Amino acid sequence: MEGDLLSALCTPAFVVDVDKAKRNAQRMIERCQKLGVQLRPHMKTHKTLECADIMTGGSQRCIVVSTLAEACFYADHGYDDILYAYSIPFDKVERCAALSERLDLFQILLDHPDALEQLRKRPLKDGRQWHAWLKLDCGNGRAGVLHSEPGALKLAEAIAKTEGVELTGVYAHCGNTYYCTGVEQIQAVAQETTKLTLQFMEKLRAVGIICKSSIGSTPSCSHPVKDMAQLSEVHPGNYVFYDVQQSMIGSCCMEDVAVRVLTRVIGHCPHRNQLLIDCGWAGISLDGAGKLPTGYAVIEGHPNLKLLSMTQEHGRVEPISGQLDYSKYPLGSLLTLIPYHSCATAVMHPVYHVHSKGRLVGKWTPTRGW
Amino acid sequence: MEGDLLSALCTPAFVVDVDKAKRNAQRMIERCQKLGVQLRPHMKTHKTLECADIMTGGSQRCIVVSTLAEACFYADHGYDDILYAYSIPFDKVERCAALSERLDLFQILLDHPDALEQLRKRPLKDGRQWHAWLKLDCGNGRAGVLHSEPGALKLAEAIAKTEGVELTGVYAHCGNTYYCTGVEQIQAVAQETTKLTLQFMEKLRAVGIICKSSIGSTPSCSHPVKDMAQLSEVHPGNYVFYDVQQSMIGSCCMEDVAVRVLTRVIGHCPHRNQLLIDCGWAGISLDGAGKLPTGYAVIEGHPNLKLLSMTQEHGRVEPISGQLDYSKYPLGSLLTLIPYHSCATAVMHPVYHVHSKGRLVGKWTPTRGW
Repeated sequence: MEGDLLSALCTPAFVVDVDKAKRNAQRMIERCQKLGVQLRPHMKTHKTLECADIMTGGSQRCIVVSTLAEACFYADHGYDDILYAYSIPFDKVERCAALSERLDLFQILLDHPDALEQLRKRPLKDGRQWHAWLKLDCGNGRAGVLHSEPGALKLAEAIAKTEGVELTGVYAHCGNTYYCTGVEQIQAVAQETTKLTLQFMEKLRAVGIICKSSIGSTPSCSHPVKDMAQLSEVHPGNYVFYDVQQSMIGSCCMEDVAVRVLTRVIGHCPHRNQLLIDCGWAGISLDGAGKLPTGYAVIEGHPNLKLLSMTQEHGRVEPISGQLDYSKYPLGSLLTLIPYHSCATAVMHPVYHVHSKGRLVGKWTPTRGW
Repeated sequence: MEGDLLSALCTPAFVVDVDKAKRNAQRMIERCQKLGVQLRPHMKTHKTLECADIMTGGSQRCIVVSTLAEACFYADHGYDDILYAYSIPFDKVERCAALSERLDLFQILLDHPDALEQLRKRPLKDGRQWHAWLKLDCGNGRAGVLHSEPGALKLAEAIAKTEGVELTGVYAHCGNTYYCTGVEQIQAVAQETTKLTLQFMEKLRAVGIICKSSIGSTPSCSHPVKDMAQLSEVHPGNYVFYDVQQSMIGSCCMEDVAVRVLTRVIGHCPHRNQLLIDCGWAGISLDGAGKLPTGYAVIEGHPNLKLLSMTQEHGRVEPISGQLDYSKYPLGSLLTLIPYHSCATAVMHPVYHVHSKGRLVGKWTPTRGW
């Protein structure tokens, strides 16, 4: 298959433009170098070895993962300095301990005294330390102890004091940048998250605790504010692929989006003024419902087409206005969907087809599960 | 792990109650026997060998699949008499031809003269015939040639006349039963689809064509109407698992739903009156958004809890009314999600954990891709 045109693929197919992915990765590496902050790229969007290599510039060190399955996958393939950026789940403490004892640097996250108690109850072998980041909520409204809570500082101090546990850093995810439109709004959230994180670092310093700090999200790291230079690390992930959502937020332009779902016309329905395509919600995510005038995706080169609805293996496409000219869309013809959310769409595919300038150059196989 | 309690599983985990699945399958087998119609179970919900065995009563014959990956998977494991119930995609004609030449009985579907032309251009070896069903749209509004179109009969005649192609049957999917509430509405759609299909069979008979007929959907086959006895086959699929959606339609009661997603509490957010769980849209489908008062799923045994929103690996849970009592939901405690749509949730999981009366008895591994 290598060297073939994309049109040789059976559909639906998730395809990655490796040149764009490399360019996106390289830009982030350079942006962070210029800013003077350590980039710790997140693997959750793609979960492949090949893309991890691209994002780490080949170092295979200093990554973030969203699942323990990812952590094990990367550890099994020579990666190290892995941060499992997920408030440590109590059913996975033993597996985390095993990774901590096996790797040079496996790091976990916590946001509750009960989690610290779990670490205390499972001391690591050979005098090793748990490397724990405190997860701080600086307004994102998901996981993390609220930055303004007195309990946040107390928990940080408790971690630092606990034998066998090192307070490695303070970690804040600014997923609230996903509600932004435009660079100005993104940078306001990035600034606020940075400010609150640095204020917390100050409070720590005041009680004699020095550790790392990290914030991240693709929007904020695509348009970093100067103060982010005072952080130790940033941890964006989606940027290697980007997607329609990121272009709407203002993280990137549509030209930067490295992934597509190829689909084919499999039905003509003139009585409904619709086409059917061979991509349903098993091939592209339902995420993004109601967000786009073009439905669940952007159909490249066909701004008047809308992916109206999907069942498991079918998509219904109709024109936004006017009548379909079916002669333009013969059965078997290819259409190209630009996903609203690349993380959510990649996760539907057991293999990614990788191309350079429209010629297939290989396949990437993601890890799955937890 | 066998013999362990479900609570031994790391979460999120997709679990199947094998006794309920067997009971659902057995009931459908008996219902069809009593009606006197051949059951051809659909594999798209689970895509596993073990569940296919249960649904075929061990015969490993007479199944429907939604993807060619499923067709190949079952063919590779000794299954035969496989109907690929998907208007034949032009990029997959050669793979369909190979299956037709390899199996005793591989059957395809078509709904357009151009598809017939594809079959004509690829005659099968050794004098074999393409076994083609005409896909008829009896009001479902997805694939198929409209039953009322003069073109429908003409296409059936063209198939029957084409050398190397046999018109095996007429196939209608009554997915429009998914818009029903209650047995009466379901049976009205089942009756209408049956009537239109049988009327079409009459028209065929009038021009000297005798072939099979099939309709299906889990709601219609869970509450069949008498006239369905005049059909050759029915092809439901979801019924082996069922789900919240099917219980709302009236296909089953909640007690019949055989699948769950196990999840654990991983965060307390008293400032937002929320819990976090370790199941996001990577673990349970976004399908069903806005359909349930309890959000994206039903949380078993906790009717006052709502799965409000999800990101990739996090779910936000809040009470429908009142304040959360966090002492009832300690970090690490299990919650059980009943999926809105089992097909859409199963597809997110690389492995299903199978239990009998709460004790693990094995794992099923589905096939994926296309």
